[in-house]
Amino acid sequence: MMTPTHNTPIDTDQERTIGALLAPDILELLEENPEAIPAETDELHARDLADVAQALPHELIGPFLSALPVERAADVLEYLEEELRAEILETMNVRQAAELVTEMTPDDRADTLETLEEESAEEILQEIPAAERAETEKLLAYDPDSAGGLMTTEFVSVSEDISVEDALAAVRRIARSERREAMNTIYTTDPAGRLKGVMALRELLAAPEGSKVSDVAWQEVQTVPASADRAQVARITREYDLVAVPVVDDNGVIQGVVTVDDVIDALVEEHTEDVQRFGGMEALEMPYTQIGFFSMIGKRAPWLAALFLSEMLTTTAMGHFQGELEKAVVLALFVPLIISSGGNSGSQATSLIIRSLALGEIKLRDWWKIVLRELPSGLLLGAILGTLGVARILLWQNLGLANYPHPNLLALTVGFALVGVVTFGSLAGSMLPFILQRLGFDPASASAPFVATLVDVTGLSIYFYVALLILRGTLL
Amino acid sequence: MMTPTHNTPIDTDQERTIGALLAPDILELLEENPEAIPAETDELHARDLADVAQALPHELIGPFLSALPVERAADVLEYLEEELRAEILETMNVRQAAELVTEMTPDDRADTLETLEEESAEEILQEIPAAERAETEKLLAYDPDSAGGLMTTEFVSVSEDISVEDALAAVRRIARSERREAMNTIYTTDPAGRLKGVMALRELLAAPEGSKVSDVAWQEVQTVPASADRAQVARITREYDLVAVPVVDDNGVIQGVVTVDDVIDALVEEHTEDVQRFGGMEALEMPYTQIGFFSMIGKRAPWLAALFLSEMLTTTAMGHFQGELEKAVVLALFVPLIISSGGNSGSQATSLIIRSLALGEIKLRDWWKIVLRELPSGLLLGAILGTLGVARILLWQNLGLANYPHPNLLALTVGFALVGVVTFGSLAGSMLPFILQRLGFDPASASAPFVATLVDVTGLSIYFYVALLILRGTLL
Repeated sequence: MMTPTHNTPIDTDQERTIGALLAPDILELLEENPEAIPAETDELHARDLADVAQALPHELIGPFLSALPVERAADVLEYLEEELRAEILETMNVRQAAELVTEMTPDDRADTLETLEEESAEEILQEIPAAERAETEKLLAYDPDSAGGLMTTEFVSVSEDISVEDALAAVRRIARSERREAMNTIYTTDPAGRLKGVMALRELLAAPEGSKVSDVAWQEVQTVPASADRAQVARITREYDLVAVPVVDDNGVIQGVVTVDDVIDALVEEHTEDVQRFGGMEALEMPYTQIGFFSMIGKRAPWLAALFLSEMLTTTAMGHFQGELEKAVVLALFVPLIISSGGNSGSQATSLIIRSLALGEIKLRDWWKIVLRELPSGLLLGAILGTLGVARILLWQNLGLANYPHPNLLALTVGFALVGVVTFGSLAGSMLPFILQRLGFDPASASAPFVATLVDVTGLSIYFYVALLILRGTLL
Repeated sequence: MMTPTHNTPIDTDQERTIGALLAPDILELLEENPEAIPAETDELHARDLADVAQALPHELIGPFLSALPVERAADVLEYLEEELRAEILETMNVRQAAELVTEMTPDDRADTLETLEEESAEEILQEIPAAERAETEKLLAYDPDSAGGLMTTEFVSVSEDISVEDALAAVRRIARSERREAMNTIYTTDPAGRLKGVMALRELLAAPEGSKVSDVAWQEVQTVPASADRAQVARITREYDLVAVPVVDDNGVIQGVVTVDDVIDALVEEHTEDVQRFGGMEALEMPYTQIGFFSMIGKRAPWLAALFLSEMLTTTAMGHFQGELEKAVVLALFVPLIISSGGNSGSQATSLIIRSLALGEIKLRDWWKIVLRELPSGLLLGAILGTLGVARILLWQNLGLANYPHPNLLALTVGFALVGVVTFGSLAGSMLPFILQRLGFDPASASAPFVATLVDVTGLSIYFYVALLILRGTLL
């Protein structure tokens, strides 16, 4: 009864957005007077219209979009949730879908086609005018998480030789006649199309009359290749406070620009993926509320099982010391305490290094500097926990809450084991992201559960060897 | 020898940036011909000049900044690392420091003063012209993580009644005469200063001649109050693809705007804090490579100690079952395996819910929907791990790798315990962020180590009760 019988996502109440509030009115208009819809909604942001659409019965979303001017409908489509957008386009007739998709910005057009069934995407693509089709096919060829996959081809560039007045007239003409997504920044190019300079639209406006654009534009331009990772694009955007990053080919010819809104989406997506991976699972890649039950299990079970299989080594490790455990069951009581301390210190160290590597604060070659810092950190943190552990044992003994055999030696064992385990945890946790990066994996895959599992087996061995050293001849 | 003797940060090699490459030339110019510095560097982005400054000996950074035009030096100062910026300003004479700080953008001016010793900040503030001082004091009064703390007061607004030509002339005049940070978006206001509309600079440029700005501007404007949390500002920026979010007071009068570069910084900072907290520590709030050794220990030790003290309950819990452990030491061998599985499943669930709450996908009141999803998830994941556990025990027994007493019953115990522990872990891990949010804490404080600790004690009890149920009369 508890297990869902089919693969449905959770249906979550959304907050009552402006879109949801308007939906009933739109529903009425759709039935009685669809011609009035454009005028009634023309002051609303496309994102709010997407909320309206999402609040309508699914079969009415198509008619609603058809009631809007086509450019407007394309804007709304861009803000719809991915799944829903695919559903709408796949149920529309191909011609109408192609018309809508043609009006989308080039980067969103490519992203949208990528989420459709391959067959539908191909059909729609065939109906798109040749110029837009070629542009879309070019964008589709890039990895969606690369600069090429994120960029739009709607940017404004002018020849570096022209005057400020001519450039301004050109910008004005473009702004009036066509849609260009990225117009806050104007690029200058040489006759071969190579990127030579950059200026903010406001700098062009402020330029003294009679000057040439090359006098106004900045010549040092931050660019990325189409293959650049989205993290690199984000880093440049952040460091130079840009609103768009130009993408150039090997000859320096500008191919497109990544606009800041796509950088923000990429940052937020990366944040979500990091937290999910750090929680010891594969990134969901869609909202928890949208993903189907079995798809979610598919993202969780393999990692959980892998961690479980690795953690089985603890059973083997403890099996080696079964003789000692039989002589001194009291040793077992501290096992969870000791291994969790190793896991926690490792998890701290890992989280620090993952972010430092991601932000470029440290490089792969700095690993030994981290060792020189984490070694004393681990020793000091271990000494702090060790002292607490010793205090706990002696206090319980003296208060009569426990009756440990050889309490002083036991306390010493737990104390030294903690120093060893926490030091090992800090070192292992801090080195793991380096090792993963060196092997070509994302360092953020070094999740807290991963580190804990790694540290548990070693932690147990450290504990039992310390016990053998200190307790031999008394308890053992 | 290993422990650093003083509180110094790690000195990390930075990549050879354009700044670092130029530093030797600048060094030479500083000695021989400082007047040439402005012309030699006028094509460089301020951020690259900040790299130059950072590559110079510290005592030469002041003279380098003095060699630049003051607006340029102020720009460079904005890009310097916080610590270094404070150091430079505090060692400069107050007059010179005030001159530089006056030229900074209002939001960066306030942020900079916030990082100085209170006394130095106060001295500098007294030397700033009255208008800028009042503006800065207003910004300083806001929480730095709120919309008020992030906003700049340099935005462009025009009266809604004027013509497009007049508005464009006004924008041009402002762009030529003053610095305004946020000029990609133009706001329209009524005579009382209340925000009425918004348009992109490009929309103003594209507007047909003879129209009024109120015809061009969009009337639905997304705004935030000054008290809005940075996460809320980021959410609006992302949802509506904005480059600036206006901040209004209770009367709708525009106070300032938060620009997208500050939103990006806030997002990245939040990402870092999340990962660090999720690793079970207090957020460092500065780069790992910059923070002093003992400051870092101060961020790690308290959480590690708190987790340790909570985890001590496992020792107490196991103490309750010491009699059972003495009868069947074999039970101890599976303790790490079982409790870590609970921790791992809890950590997965927590990471999912933390991000869903942060992204607004689920609300506090949705908690019961999550229970209805996590309960079957936990049961299924537990059944998967339980099957693996049973297989491991029976396989080892049959291969002769282990000689367990009552292997079938033992396998059953471990299997059922895993179902219970993983289910409990998934439920506890998913509910913890809700409980924290309900109590007014950040749900992201529900770190993996925190969840693991919570689950360990209960996990042990589940395990031993299952053992008592299944093994009584045989092993126990």
